[in-house]
Amino acid sequence: MLTTIAFDGDDTLWHNERIFAATQARFEDLLRPYAADVDIHDRLFRTEKKNLALFGYGVKGFTLSMIETALEITDHRIHGESIARILQWGREMLAEPVEPLTDVRETLQALHGSYHLIVITKGDLFDQENKVARSGLADLFNRVEIVSEKDEATYRDILARSGTKPEAFVMVGNSLRSDILPVLSLGARAVHIEYEITWAHEDAEKPADSSGRFWRLDHIGALPSLIRRIDAMDPMLRS
Amino acid sequence: MLTTIAFDGDDTLWHNERIFAATQARFEDLLRPYAADVDIHDRLFRTEKKNLALFGYGVKGFTLSMIETALEITDHRIHGESIARILQWGREMLAEPVEPLTDVRETLQALHGSYHLIVITKGDLFDQENKVARSGLADLFNRVEIVSEKDEATYRDILARSGTKPEAFVMVGNSLRSDILPVLSLGARAVHIEYEITWAHEDAEKPADSSGRFWRLDHIGALPSLIRRIDAMDPMLRS
Repeated sequence: MLTTIAFDGDDTLWHNERIFAATQARFEDLLRPYAADVDIHDRLFRTEKKNLALFGYGVKGFTLSMIETALEITDHRIHGESIARILQWGREMLAEPVEPLTDVRETLQALHGSYHLIVITKGDLFDQENKVARSGLADLFNRVEIVSEKDEATYRDILARSGTKPEAFVMVGNSLRSDILPVLSLGARAVHIEYEITWAHEDAEKPADSSGRFWRLDHIGALPSLIRRIDAMDPMLRS
Repeated sequence: MLTTIAFDGDDTLWHNERIFAATQARFEDLLRPYAADVDIHDRLFRTEKKNLALFGYGVKGFTLSMIETALEITDHRIHGESIARILQWGREMLAEPVEPLTDVRETLQALHGSYHLIVITKGDLFDQENKVARSGLADLFNRVEIVSEKDEATYRDILARSGTKPEAFVMVGNSLRSDILPVLSLGARAVHIEYEITWAHEDAEKPADSSGRFWRLDHIGALPSLIRRIDAMDPMLRS
């Protein structure tokens, strides 16, 4: 019954948010001497949110938002060497090794061949392509989809182009907002695997579990047995 | 015989390079007081080239490269307000109206319906999607492909995924390096329409005209009649 299993990339297949969080901590340390009373974390988040409609997701936009926030908080008094450090952090983030989460490779190997496996990831096209390549996982996927936003229209389009019906599709990811809710809305299945950190922008209300199409796992290693259960369950559901 | 006509976006369908050139002129004016003896234009180009492997193409990477070059040329002495101006130029470039070149709309309307029409454009995913939407031309295309690099592998992949043979495909664009040479290498056809400005990175040796698969036009308005000639010519070529 299930033919296609799609995976989010960042924080589902490989670590990502902790790289942003580490840079953000350095950013706060850099600016604290200028602005003891300012909630730097919140100011940066608000700049990012404001810029999303123009920049989209990704490291380059994040770096530009850090520079903008630094200039604003310091009333343009920040030293050029500090701006150069922020630029350097951006470069380091883009060059950071892409480290698959525990058991990701084994899980993909267990499913490979039996299902059509897709990565659906959002962000900078160039950066995300590089990440898939650097992850060492590219050979285990039948397709890679890099998108600018993960909403219902995006998933509908991906399903249509591959001729996949919603009931044959399951999405696996760490973001309720991007990986779970729009997929459930389409009538497809979704598996939520929380990551150690969630970017505030990706927070959302948890869906009701009652649809019978939504599952949570603590760890991706449990996915193959869940997939087998879903496939075994289906004939009964349909009867 | 021809089934598919693909168009480059930037400087083929809509103006782009002149927006970069205008920003670059402002950038040079901003920095000249700091560095009378420096070839600012060349320094920025070299920073961009160095960063391409990490940033890819697009406005966000260009903005980061301007800031990096400004810091280097001024030995980090540039004022924060000047950095803020550079950031603002980047935002303005991303929000700039997308203005189709003369006769583009009429040309696309003449071909629409008879051929499968594709945009193949490189750069920031988010920015390029926005540009296609803002151009007002989206409805005239059957497909939009946004890619990180336009090389032979990219075109081979696009042809394979749409089941198009090279002899049924023609690419129209302003960059010899990105739109013409890789397409001719695949055995497909290409039409070069020069734009008023070419970014140094896109320069390349002109291909020999002898392949019988390469044409130049001064203006996109001449494309429909060229396409008719190609389609009429083919039976003879094949005999």
